[in-house]
Amino acid sequence: MTAATAVPVEADGVAPTAPDVLERCRRLVGPALAAAVERLHPWPAEMAAYSLGWCEVGGAPAPGATGGKGLRQALAVLGAEAVGAPGEAGSAGAVAVELVHTFSLLHDDVMDGDTTRRRRPTVWKAYGTGPAVLAGDALFALAVETLAAAPGAHGPAAVRLLAASLTDLVRGQADDLLFESRPWRGPGAVRPDEYRMMAEHKTGALLGSAAALGALLAGAPEETVATLDRAGRHLGVAFQIVDDVLGIWGDPRVTGKPAHGDLRRRKKTLPVLAALSTPEGAAGGLAARRLAGLLEGADALDHDGARRAADLAEEAGGRSAALAEAHRHIAAVHACLESVPLAPRPLGDLRTLLDFLLHRRL
Amino acid sequence: MTAATAVPVEADGVAPTAPDVLERCRRLVGPALAAAVERLHPWPAEMAAYSLGWCEVGGAPAPGATGGKGLRQALAVLGAEAVGAPGEAGSAGAVAVELVHTFSLLHDDVMDGDTTRRRRPTVWKAYGTGPAVLAGDALFALAVETLAAAPGAHGPAAVRLLAASLTDLVRGQADDLLFESRPWRGPGAVRPDEYRMMAEHKTGALLGSAAALGALLAGAPEETVATLDRAGRHLGVAFQIVDDVLGIWGDPRVTGKPAHGDLRRRKKTLPVLAALSTPEGAAGGLAARRLAGLLEGADALDHDGARRAADLAEEAGGRSAALAEAHRHIAAVHACLESVPLAPRPLGDLRTLLDFLLHRRL
Repeated sequence: MTAATAVPVEADGVAPTAPDVLERCRRLVGPALAAAVERLHPWPAEMAAYSLGWCEVGGAPAPGATGGKGLRQALAVLGAEAVGAPGEAGSAGAVAVELVHTFSLLHDDVMDGDTTRRRRPTVWKAYGTGPAVLAGDALFALAVETLAAAPGAHGPAAVRLLAASLTDLVRGQADDLLFESRPWRGPGAVRPDEYRMMAEHKTGALLGSAAALGALLAGAPEETVATLDRAGRHLGVAFQIVDDVLGIWGDPRVTGKPAHGDLRRRKKTLPVLAALSTPEGAAGGLAARRLAGLLEGADALDHDGARRAADLAEEAGGRSAALAEAHRHIAAVHACLESVPLAPRPLGDLRTLLDFLLHRRL
Repeated sequence: MTAATAVPVEADGVAPTAPDVLERCRRLVGPALAAAVERLHPWPAEMAAYSLGWCEVGGAPAPGATGGKGLRQALAVLGAEAVGAPGEAGSAGAVAVELVHTFSLLHDDVMDGDTTRRRRPTVWKAYGTGPAVLAGDALFALAVETLAAAPGAHGPAAVRLLAASLTDLVRGQADDLLFESRPWRGPGAVRPDEYRMMAEHKTGALLGSAAALGALLAGAPEETVATLDRAGRHLGVAFQIVDDVLGIWGDPRVTGKPAHGDLRRRKKTLPVLAALSTPEGAAGGLAARRLAGLLEGADALDHDGARRAADLAEEAGGRSAALAEAHRHIAAVHACLESVPLAPRPLGDLRTLLDFLLHRRL
């Protein structure tokens, strides 16, 4: 069964597209998210609103700015709907995960030194490092406060679930930063399973807890909650790999990120790690050796160097290996979703999102 | 009744000193705190241990390093004991507030650009800004996780209490940072009530939640929990004022902070704000005007300039006004402690701590 055939159609016979699903969830969560951000101190509130694409620096409305897709809030809403509740049941979870996501973008951009995100200066670049750290802290505290105040009997378990995913998220970011000082080849090189674990923690934990929180707050059985969490973790690994592929071969006009940014910073991404693991003598082995030489060189990679590295990584099979790995994790997501009873229509929406995420801009 | 007469004596007839009380609480909480820090990723764990004075950069033991006093964990332990429970009942709260305190030191030092703390380089100075932000985030997540996992029926209320104090803490830090760009005099100047609110949020909220969490986890009635929270908030304001006074007139060899650091950075502290509010014509009015001229000048304050500013602030009555305000808040703490039934011995310990904190190095 392919995802496409499983998508139920709307009453008018047209299945909602992924942007439709995301938009519906954003509308459902929007007022609660805006109300939460308004509870912040005005200064972190402005930085949060800027980061969410709601305003410019200074607080003026930003009609042209693009916020995030709102993937995490959508997963929380669909998690609630998939276990037979209205999407509103997952609302506190949706707000909490969007706040955590925004916090993590603010702090990650500080740690990674990234200067642009979604075609605008990052928060630390626009407001300063200290203020960006402060705004992230404020969002973190607000996320916990929001979930701890959620009505119903499931609040405490929800806070435990979010706290565990926060710990994983920080752990993944720590590993990602430490990968930078590891060698490209040899016994100290980053192994693919280390990369997967990093991606699961850094990206998957929050996606997993988003879907799981929606179901949990809606009163789903423990097994369903755990399965949605696992599904989100696989999705996170796939998502991260697709991001890495886009970071090397994506069109900067579409991704909004600088061309070959990850290669120029010598970031240890799966496509490159996979390319380098192609053995001597195999097809692509020569390209792998050349790629390693380029990355291990003392010189910073300029535009041409990064382009050559991207070509070599593709020639050495890194792109196709990474995409195959992403497809394996997407298959695992689908397997998770089939292993527990879920309502057909939100399940269809979830599958639509998965297809969209894997195929976006590739 | 003075605090001194209210301190009960030990079985051997000698009342414990404040260092005795702090040491006893540190021993009681120590193993749980160490176990929590060990659950962190090794990298943030080392930075946390460094910040706590447990190790040097690189992880080697630091027998000579001084950690914090452990005031917050002591308040949580005494909060539990004061409502008739063993101190262990407050342990999860004690660990959580120490972790939050460590998180806030790490991030505040980044935001304030402070390079030394307790005579050692600050974490961002020793490990880098990004890693310090990461370690703070890890501690924050661990604090929430620890409290969310606390056994007993009071975990959810405890998490709500901690989350509210986290929000206040960030709010106070935001105001403190924003004070820097406010004028020294005129309608835009920082008013004393704004300063008090900032100090209550930045310093008092966590001290309040420390004592309140101990009592809450031990099953105390709501009114007792709220009263201990209020007591801690008053203590925080007093504590912050004493810190400010020490930052201007304290002996750097004792405080471990650079001489006149706050003055040289033109930080808006209560002693200076109080000095500047002395009206023209009143005793000290001339000194106030001279002080304002010095602080409003374009030149950075060098050692002599800062010393002159300190002398003028004292002459204008800033030091005595600040200390009088601190004493008012300490009196409010004592009034809180007398308004609810508390066990005599831990109450005595609490009062011993208060005396110690107010009179330390002054």
